[in-house]
Parts: sequence; structure tokens; C-alpha cells
Amino acid sequence: MEHPYLMYLGDVPDQLGAKTAKGIVDWRPEWCLGQVRLADCKADLGIQDISIAEAAKNGAKTMVIGIVNSGGFLPEHWVRDIIEAMEAGMDIASGLHIRLGSISEVKEAAERLGRNLFDVRHPTQDLPTGKGTPRSGKRLLAVGTDCSVGKMYTALAVEKEMKKRGMKADFRATGQTGIFIAGTGISIDAVVADFISGAVEVLSPANDEDHWDIIEGQGSLFHPSFAGVSLGLLHGSQADALILCHEPTRTHMRGLPHQPLPDLKECMELNLTTARLTNKDAKFVGVSVNTSGLSVAEGDALLKKLEDELGLPCVDAFRTGVAPIIDNL
Amino acid sequence: MEHPYLMYLGDVPDQLGAKTAKGIVDWRPEWCLGQVRLADCKADLGIQDISIAEAAKNGAKTMVIGIVNSGGFLPEHWVRDIIEAMEAGMDIASGLHIRLGSISEVKEAAERLGRNLFDVRHPTQDLPTGKGTPRSGKRLLAVGTDCSVGKMYTALAVEKEMKKRGMKADFRATGQTGIFIAGTGISIDAVVADFISGAVEVLSPANDEDHWDIIEGQGSLFHPSFAGVSLGLLHGSQADALILCHEPTRTHMRGLPHQPLPDLKECMELNLTTARLTNKDAKFVGVSVNTSGLSVAEGDALLKKLEDELGLPCVDAFRTGVAPIIDNL
Repeated sequence: MEHPYLMYLGDVPDQLGAKTAKGIVDWRPEWCLGQVRLADCKADLGIQDISIAEAAKNGAKTMVIGIVNSGGFLPEHWVRDIIEAMEAGMDIASGLHIRLGSISEVKEAAERLGRNLFDVRHPTQDLPTGKGTPRSGKRLLAVGTDCSVGKMYTALAVEKEMKKRGMKADFRATGQTGIFIAGTGISIDAVVADFISGAVEVLSPANDEDHWDIIEGQGSLFHPSFAGVSLGLLHGSQADALILCHEPTRTHMRGLPHQPLPDLKECMELNLTTARLTNKDAKFVGVSVNTSGLSVAEGDALLKKLEDELGLPCVDAFRTGVAPIIDNL
Repeated sequence: MEHPYLMYLGDVPDQLGAKTAKGIVDWRPEWCLGQVRLADCKADLGIQDISIAEAAKNGAKTMVIGIVNSGGFLPEHWVRDIIEAMEAGMDIASGLHIRLGSISEVKEAAERLGRNLFDVRHPTQDLPTGKGTPRSGKRLLAVGTDCSVGKMYTALAVEKEMKKRGMKADFRATGQTGIFIAGTGISIDAVVADFISGAVEVLSPANDEDHWDIIEGQGSLFHPSFAGVSLGLLHGSQADALILCHEPTRTHMRGLPHQPLPDLKECMELNLTTARLTNKDAKFVGVSVNTSGLSVAEGDALLKKLEDELGLPCVDAFRTGVAPIIDNL
């Protein structure tokens, strides 16, 4: 996907519905040229409001629909705006469940105008099965005790810190928000099950020996819904370095009130045992805790306690940064 | 899929290409009314040759294309036979990679005649994500040290032995040959990654407390290509009882010359550790070794040795049967 992006919010009813768009603006502000908001829009990305025509004049290459709409269909007035953006020269990228090409007016306009439609939730490339063959370059994978505990955020913070230090590093996106942020990637939980590890091998190919791929994890080996995705991702990444991500106020696995959270040590052990199938030297290099649900004092105390218990740098990627983990590499 | 089946072999070039069809005839001979072989067919299922018209007259309900063809397309003269079978009143079921409905003449004929097209490799139903919630009934899952080590065969032998003893049991198919044999099932490695465990929950729903679902495993937790599928299958099955399947002459993981086989104990331990996420009481009840690559004396010696080492009944499901494992339940 080419940037600059024009961020399309339509009339999304609350800020949470624009979570993906907000993630893009947080991590790639320089790519986000402005936002289009309709009269009833209740979200705000904190960037300039702009019309589609004006954005096109300013060089926007892709209009990004980084929002969640209920019902899973596209309102007719959004379709009109999408076609207007294509007529103004932009490609369209969407994180919606519905495929852009399944809407006949959108499909016809894209064909007529020669524009690209990107459905980041839906991988389209032919994928091989994983091979597990060692490849050159270094890889770091963010894994989690649960879903939505800060794996993407941590991976992006690692990439940023590495680049600041002049290291060769690329964030590799495995979920929709990450794909918009990287401009490329594969939505791993949407590939056919046979190709999970193969998709990650494609996503993170052989590279210079001193180059790091920073791979976004998905789910958790301890989540009964998604552990298969997490395991294939772990095997395909052949991670040299693992960071465990955790959210300490969670009382049960996300979406499953009956399912307890794993112990951190137990979670690290199972990740290591299974990671070693494709990389014998895999090890944990740090822990990233989202302490936003705690007071600063509580958060600091928890990080200190975990550091003593686990013998690894423990950070809050957002609040304290990931520098101690990179020092430890 | 309704039986009796008419087995269509076309002009498959060797016996191996008809492996799926042979599996169906081995396990459901009473469902297989006859075989259709063209002039150049080099496979033989050992059942009567019959014409499509005659099979229809004898009550065939579904014509089964249980073969592998190279190139992934359907030869024109097979298309003609498929349409003839539909005109004679049969549904069509295929294990080919190509979808029957993607061939326009086949699709049109099915619509015109009101026949069903089953592509057993391609799950079509909407699936939920797995929940991990306990459900009633008992479940046994065949897991493996590798792919193609006898998991389906073992599961079918267990179902047969249980039924012989008057127990309530159903084989639950997760791969294409198994689906033809059960008449239903879900090709687990072909579902979208997010829904692996959810698909198994659908495949093996709540049942009578004394009913056993005998679930066909896929892949291996130690296979770098497919371990994600195996883990989701393990979590979705919530297995009470596990049987480890093994092929002792294998020198490396199937398809991956660089990848060593796991130790049997190591393999059992990782399966147990991960199975306990959704069933705390999961345990191994036996080992099933395919000893066909060994002499009878060597095979017997190996089974005895493993039995001593692992403290579990060790059988060759084909040669010695699975009775000692059922005794152990």
C-alpha cells in the first residue's frame, strides 16, 4: 500500500470504532495526511479534517478505512465516497470484514479506473506450507499471555528503538492494524490453517545476518480459541529472541470468562519448548507489561518484582520504553 | 453425503492415486456399490466394475471421486461422466483440490438437476471460534509423532472395536479420506486459522456421558509445517483419552529431510501439557505403531519394548488390533 494515507472515518459512532485508524496515526503520523469525517462521526484522530478532493491534490495515495462498523455492511454513502476517492486517483485499503471487491459498484470503479483494492483482513497471495529450514538474519517475536496485551505496540517500540540506535530492523505485521502501519504484511489468523507457519516464513524472508525482523505475535499458546495460530506463528518465525507481553489486570483469558490466565513462567516455558523445534537457540530477552490499569507506583513495583522473579528486563513499552530489552540483546 | 457410493477412478495412472478410494472401500465396503474405470485406469479397488447407468439403477446415491490427479484440473471426459452421474440421479463428492462448482458445466448441471456437490477438502460452513467450554460425552484423539503415521486408521479401529463391544462411539473425520468414510466431517487443515479449535468443537458436540467421539488427528505438534493445526485440534477436541501413533522406520519428519523425529516420551509430554489447557484430566491410554515396515519378530519386539518403557498398551492397530487399548480405558 502506498502512502500518504487519507484516513476515512465515515460516521463511526465512537472512538473505539476508530481504534485501527488511531493506531496508524500513533505510529505513522507522517503518513497520515488528514481525516475525512461525516456529520455524525464521533471519532477524532487529532489530525486535520480534509475533503477527498483536497487530499488528492495534496498527494494522498491510499484512502484507508481503518474502522469497525457494526452489521458488516458498507453504508451506501460510504460507497459513494470510496468511488470519489478512486476517481480522485487513490487506491482503497480496508480493514472491514466485508471485501471491497464484493461490492459491485466499488469493484467496477476500481477496474474502470485501474485502482487497487486492499482488504488487509483477507490474504490473497498463494502461500507455501512452512519448511522450518533455517534462514539468515535475526528475528524477534512478541508473544503473549493472552490476546490484546500489547504485542503489536511492543514490536513497534522495539523497531523504533533499534532504528534509533542505527540497527537494521523491520517490523513485520501479522494483523490488520499492523499491516496498515507497515504498509504490508499478512493477516495470519485469516490464512488457511495449513499455511500458518509458511505465511510467516514468507513474511520474514532471509536477510542480512545483522538485520532484525521484529514480528508481531497473535493470540497466545494458552488461548483455547487461537493457540494454533500462535504456535504456527512461533514455528514460522524461528525466533532468536522472544518478548513476553502481559496485561496484569486481566482476570481471565479474553472472551472466555471460564479460562484462567497462565502463570508467566509457565507461559515462557511452553513458548521456549515449542520455539526450539525450529530454532534451538530461542530465548526470552525481556517482558513487556501494559501497566496502564495500575498506578505508577503499582506499575513500577510490579516491573521490579517480575524482574527479580524472571531475571529479565521488564518494561512497560509505552511508559518506560524498551531500551533495557535492546541493551540485553 | 448419502451412500451407497459409486467409486469413480477415471483413468488414474497408478494404485497410489486411488489411495483415498481404497481407504473408503477398506473401511466401508458395504457402502461401495462398484467402481467406474476408464480404459487407461491403472488402479483397482477390488470391487465390481459397473457403469454409471447400472450403478444408478442399483441405488447409488453419490458418485465419489476419491483420487488424486496431477495438474489439479479435471479432464474433459471426466466432466462428461460427472454430468452423466448427476443426470442418473447421483450427487457428486470429490477429494480433488479443484472445486467441482468452479467448473461451469458441472455447476450448471447440478443447479439444473438439483444435485449436491461436495468438495470434502473445502469446508463451506460458517464456523465459530473455539470456546474451550467443557461439554458432555467422552472424547478420544489420535495424535502423532509425524504426519501419515496411522492416526485415521487407529481411530477407525478404535471405533470398530468399541462398537463391537456395544459401546456408543462415533468416528469424527478431520481429513478428506476420513470424511468419505464417515459420510461427514470437516477438513481441519483447510479451515481459516482462527477457527481450527472452533471447527473441532462443532465436529464433536456435546453428547451422552457414556458416548465416545473418536477424533481423527492431523499432523504433529513436532511438524514445523502443521503443528498449529495439531494444537488447535487438540484444544478443540478436549480429549479425555489420547493415543500416540508412530511409524518407527521414519528417519525424518515427512517432507522435511532436515527435521528429526521427536522422542516418543517428549511427544507425549508436550501433547499432555497442551491438552490440559482444555481438559485437565487428559491422559494417554495407548500407543499405536505401524510396524508394517518391520518383520513380525522386530515389530513384536518393538511393541514389547515400548510397552515396558511407556507403561501403556502398545499395539499395531492393523496387525494386532486395538483391544488392549480399549481394555485400558
